[in-house]
Amino acid sequence: MKRIAVLTSGGDAPGMNAAIRAVVRKAISEGIEVYGINRGYAGMVEGDIFHLNAKDVSNILNRGGTFLQSARYPEFAQLEGQLAGIEQLKKHGIEGVVVIGGDGSYHGAMRLTEHGFPAIGLPGTIDNDIVGTDYTIGFDTAVATATDAIDKIRDTAFSHGRTFVVEVMGRNAGDIALWSGIAAGADQIIVPEEEFDIKEVVAKVQNGYDNKGKNHHIIVVAEGVMSGEEFAAKMKEAGDTSDLRVTNLGHIVRGGSPTARDRVIASWMGAHAVDLLKAGYGGLAVGIHNEKLVESPILGTAEEGALFSLGEDGKIIVNNPHKARLDFAELNRSLAH
Amino acid sequence: MKRIAVLTSGGDAPGMNAAIRAVVRKAISEGIEVYGINRGYAGMVEGDIFHLNAKDVSNILNRGGTFLQSARYPEFAQLEGQLAGIEQLKKHGIEGVVVIGGDGSYHGAMRLTEHGFPAIGLPGTIDNDIVGTDYTIGFDTAVATATDAIDKIRDTAFSHGRTFVVEVMGRNAGDIALWSGIAAGADQIIVPEEEFDIKEVVAKVQNGYDNKGKNHHIIVVAEGVMSGEEFAAKMKEAGDTSDLRVTNLGHIVRGGSPTARDRVIASWMGAHAVDLLKAGYGGLAVGIHNEKLVESPILGTAEEGALFSLGEDGKIIVNNPHKARLDFAELNRSLAH
Amino acid sequence: MKRIAVLTSGGDAPGMNAAIRAVVRKAISEGIEVYGINRGYAGMVEGDIFHLNAKDVSNILNRGGTFLQSARYPEFAQLEGQLAGIEQLKKHGIEGVVVIGGDGSYHGAMRLTEHGFPAIGLPGTIDNDIVGTDYTIGFDTAVATATDAIDKIRDTAFSHGRTFVVEVMGRNAGDIALWSGIAAGADQIIVPEEEFDIKEVVAKVQNGYDNKGKNHHIIVVAEGVMSGEEFAAKMKEAGDTSDLRVTNLGHIVRGGSPTARDRVIASWMGAHAVDLLKAGYGGLAVGIHNEKLVESPILGTAEEGALFSLGEDGKIIVNNPHKARLDFAELNRSLAH
Amino acid sequence: MKRIAVLTSGGDAPGMNAAIRAVVRKAISEGIEVYGINRGYAGMVEGDIFHLNAKDVSNILNRGGTFLQSARYPEFAQLEGQLAGIEQLKKHGIEGVVVIGGDGSYHGAMRLTEHGFPAIGLPGTIDNDIVGTDYTIGFDTAVATATDAIDKIRDTAFSHGRTFVVEVMGRNAGDIALWSGIAAGADQIIVPEEEFDIKEVVAKVQNGYDNKGKNHHIIVVAEGVMSGEEFAAKMKEAGDTSDLRVTNLGHIVRGGSPTARDRVIASWMGAHAVDLLKAGYGGLAVGIHNEKLVESPILGTAEEGALFSLGEDGKIIVNNPHKARLDFAELNRSLAH
Repeated sequence: MKRIAVLTSGGDAPGMNAAIRAVVRKAISEGIEVYGINRGYAGMVEGDIFHLNAKDVSNILNRGGTFLQSARYPEFAQLEGQLAGIEQLKKHGIEGVVVIGGDGSYHGAMRLTEHGFPAIGLPGTIDNDIVGTDYTIGFDTAVATATDAIDKIRDTAFSHGRTFVVEVMGRNAGDIALWSGIAAGADQIIVPEEEFDIKEVVAKVQNGYDNKGKNHHIIVVAEGVMSGEEFAAKMKEAGDTSDLRVTNLGHIVRGGSPTARDRVIASWMGAHAVDLLKAGYGGLAVGIHNEKLVESPILGTAEEGALFSLGEDGKIIVNNPHKARLDFAELNRSLAH
Repeated sequence: MKRIAVLTSGGDAPGMNAAIRAVVRKAISEGIEVYGINRGYAGMVEGDIFHLNAKDVSNILNRGGTFLQSARYPEFAQLEGQLAGIEQLKKHGIEGVVVIGGDGSYHGAMRLTEHGFPAIGLPGTIDNDIVGTDYTIGFDTAVATATDAIDKIRDTAFSHGRTFVVEVMGRNAGDIALWSGIAAGADQIIVPEEEFDIKEVVAKVQNGYDNKGKNHHIIVVAEGVMSGEEFAAKMKEAGDTSDLRVTNLGHIVRGGSPTARDRVIASWMGAHAVDLLKAGYGGLAVGIHNEKLVESPILGTAEEGALFSLGEDGKIIVNNPHKARLDFAELNRSLAH
Repeated sequence: MKRIAVLTSGGDAPGMNAAIRAVVRKAISEGIEVYGINRGYAGMVEGDIFHLNAKDVSNILNRGGTFLQSARYPEFAQLEGQLAGIEQLKKHGIEGVVVIGGDGSYHGAMRLTEHGFPAIGLPGTIDNDIVGTDYTIGFDTAVATATDAIDKIRDTAFSHGRTFVVEVMGRNAGDIALWSGIAAGADQIIVPEEEFDIKEVVAKVQNGYDNKGKNHHIIVVAEGVMSGEEFAAKMKEAGDTSDLRVTNLGHIVRGGSPTARDRVIASWMGAHAVDLLKAGYGGLAVGIHNEKLVESPILGTAEEGALFSLGEDGKIIVNNPHKARLDFAELNRSLAH
Repeated sequence: MKRIAVLTSGGDAPGMNAAIRAVVRKAISEGIEVYGINRGYAGMVEGDIFHLNAKDVSNILNRGGTFLQSARYPEFAQLEGQLAGIEQLKKHGIEGVVVIGGDGSYHGAMRLTEHGFPAIGLPGTIDNDIVGTDYTIGFDTAVATATDAIDKIRDTAFSHGRTFVVEVMGRNAGDIALWSGIAAGADQIIVPEEEFDIKEVVAKVQNGYDNKGKNHHIIVVAEGVMSGEEFAAKMKEAGDTSDLRVTNLGHIVRGGSPTARDRVIASWMGAHAVDLLKAGYGGLAVGIHNEKLVESPILGTAEEGALFSLGEDGKIIVNNPHKARLDFAELNRSLAH
């Protein structure tokens, strides 16, 4: 392996730059050349590929987003797109690829491997909903940013005696809501993985004001449940009489300088991806499980520990889908006064 | 003057606690007792009044919101409300009041003074739209928080090549938008004080992508113009073809630990309010103008420098209404690439 | 178990307040009364003990330090001190104690248990050097603060082309240095767990300037190795010719609002301590291992998984002493350009 | 004026990058080309000069330090150095220079102007000690960073009942100490502009513990007074019996992302420097006074408002030397409990 490439794909996440830097620096320390690919698979197909040296990644460790940029590119699910991408890789003499991103990115990595280009996937997304790892790159930062924002909202909630519905990102997974909700002392946390009864939600709010001496109430709602505005409307329908406001944290949760922890795990996984390529592996996703680096086949049978399998109809089956920490939902209920 | 009270009124703002602490500590150092009034004029009328000593304000300097809580209380515009409040003040032996808040709070302060209770107003609001001062308590923090959020949004805007409309608070005044827009390097800033042509806005976006090599574009819109969602809809109507997203920073701009600067000016103004009461003044608002403390009569004629006058119909006239720094709008146009 | 107490002991750590809050709230939700003990074992012996309700811990989750205060109190190693403490506990009807702190705190917890007072230890220290847990409460925040400070120092190092020695806390353990060094992209990390050759350190600095196009160099040194000043002096003796500066981060690494992660793990462990007391356990320390809660006997044999054993001479033996992640030292060497 | 250059000189300060960006962007918007000079006057003499376009300054607004780097270069005080620099400027077709830095930088700007190269100075230093401006670029950030650090130290001071001496930067000026001390609620602030009596300092500490119910005490000392270690030693000599610790904030106060305010004033002044060069001015320093842009001759007579004059012996006389806000020292004494 003399030359590898690195790309980011899917939604950006803080720590992606730290992972890119680790790939570049580790590869160079192993005598391997590195190329960057701009805008994910789209850039690969268009040949937007350029040489990277150690200094090119000197100031990116602490920066949010991805300096290689990212893009969704559904065309890469088609054979034609894949072959066009491989042609470009060959043209640049590239022998292996590190792909940083979410599920879609992993599928691309698998296709490349099938076509003879070993590719390694790294889990980069704020949602923490990727199989094969306890933590994704960007999750810790998203939790930190959401927590900081809820802390700020509490200042106003307290000062004015208000109820706030705070919507945080998390399409399928309630992890950001659960962690930031506990960290910020939310009174209620609503996640897609758990049923809720809007009447009970409203009753808890009322009970807090009437019987517990509370002067404010904060409800964190994961976007996968519904929007904060919808949730507040349902609360009003269900009889809420409090001074109710909604804030959607939106895209600020996605940006910002990565936390120290995200930088460390991104660096750790990035360096490991190079080790795997150097050792001749491809079609694997790197993860962190029980504080150790682990690798899983991206596609294969559940028995062999693969993250995804193909069903008889050709559809992708997710083996061991990610589960949010519902024990944390329970924990928060015991802590919310 | 042996006993004074302090209250916060209107929307909460970071630095209100620093001002309260300064009032309490300075008064005690002058041998004056201090009482806190909860929830503004509402708490005054209800007699929600309690003694404060130096230690009670020991840990509030760096905390957002107001530990005295705040509330809007339109009833205080009526004579009945005012007399009820004064009765409570008398009951507690209070001889003067410091009122921290916005315009409405000032009107209350003036009424108290007219009824023989000297009251001093301090400008507490994030919007910076209070007459008689260059800076309000909370403005610097709101700008800092908005700037930090726009910095974060830029990470995603760059990573994905997107246009973002970012809505920031500011009902009548574009100051938060102007300062945070310049500080975060916004490409366009839209404020209520200035006309805009949506076609030009869209043309600038397009020109950036087509002719200037820009890969993203950030537009800061003050809420006083319209909501971010409405603005984006108008852009689409006007022909915008970019990947356009909206984020409303909402209430997070209002909370958070005050900046060092807000703590300093709040402390400075708070201590001065006590000096004024001690010297027998009332009906004045404290401000900072040209880096010096200034005082203005809250009600009177424009000639005597009063902030407000009464029209023949009894309506309140704002003398020298606050003006946003439109030179900063011009400055940003010359810096936006 | 109808009434328990909670105290903090040893050096303060961010997240201790979150743990206290969790103990109080969880206990109340289980129908158990909670008392706080000020200033650790010193306060216990002096009877500085007071009732805590759910609201008393309402605003502490996001605050650094410990609102119960802490103190070192070697007298509690003596039987006399222990009995005096127990007398106070009995006087207040307390039946179990949660102790948050470091090694010394654990020994006290064990003594109480031996005297019939079930006590549970929680690992609270920034150093991450407590046996029986992968992470201590406060470590993540200390790493975050150190990383942020090194990021700032890099601005000046780059601007002036300087070499900086940055001393970070960590008496026996290099964990803070290793994590923050990787997170901030340090060029070299020196920890007590690993030998270093000052000539090699200096040679690497020189090589960076001479052959790698580097314009600055950052060396993170754990205080357990030696002070930053001493290290810099040794570098100069060994022939360093660069523009060398020293910064000791000192106590700022110990304070500050806990990170979201520290708040979550502190809450998680705090609630679990109550579960253990309720279930009748004592003499256990709570930890997090492989992302799960674990408990270990504080004193016993290594075979039964106890954290400490007593040697024949009565001295305390640490079973499975904490080991810093030396693979992270290796990782950083491969990433430092 | 068709082509100008920009350089940073002296100690780095947060906001220098924002000023550089403003110079570059504003000049381009006026049809003027811009060159960057690396490492201040040293780089000028060595010809380390390169073209800058609008995109080159796209990501620097929010970054600390100076991407043009800085250096002290006493040789520029000599005619030979000046002529060598001018030769390089001519070689690159440069007709005017913007110099961002402290006093020494201003002297260089004046020399260039005398030799026929109009140069404009911008005040860039964290110390706020430059004549001709109310605020220097970097001061607000330094105050913010110092305040944040003292907030953190207070957590430990409270938790352990300790006295802390915190040394902050400020060689000749106590401004950082005064502002951050007020903002962080320091109990005492010691600055070079004011005498202090170490016995009184110690007596205040003792009185706080003995008579005011304080459990901790924070003293901020500007480095211009003496080092924190020396100050603490003097306190001990003078009889202090408290648990006394020292922290020197050191270089972290100098780095970090500039505050929104520093970015705004740096942008404002940077754009103005271009206006002045375009209008044919040189030998002026830009400042902000009473919230407005002002310009002062760098060298001349005190009567004409020049910042510096030459004495008969050829020595530089500082007209109207900077004065720290000693009213803030007084303010803090009335607020410290």
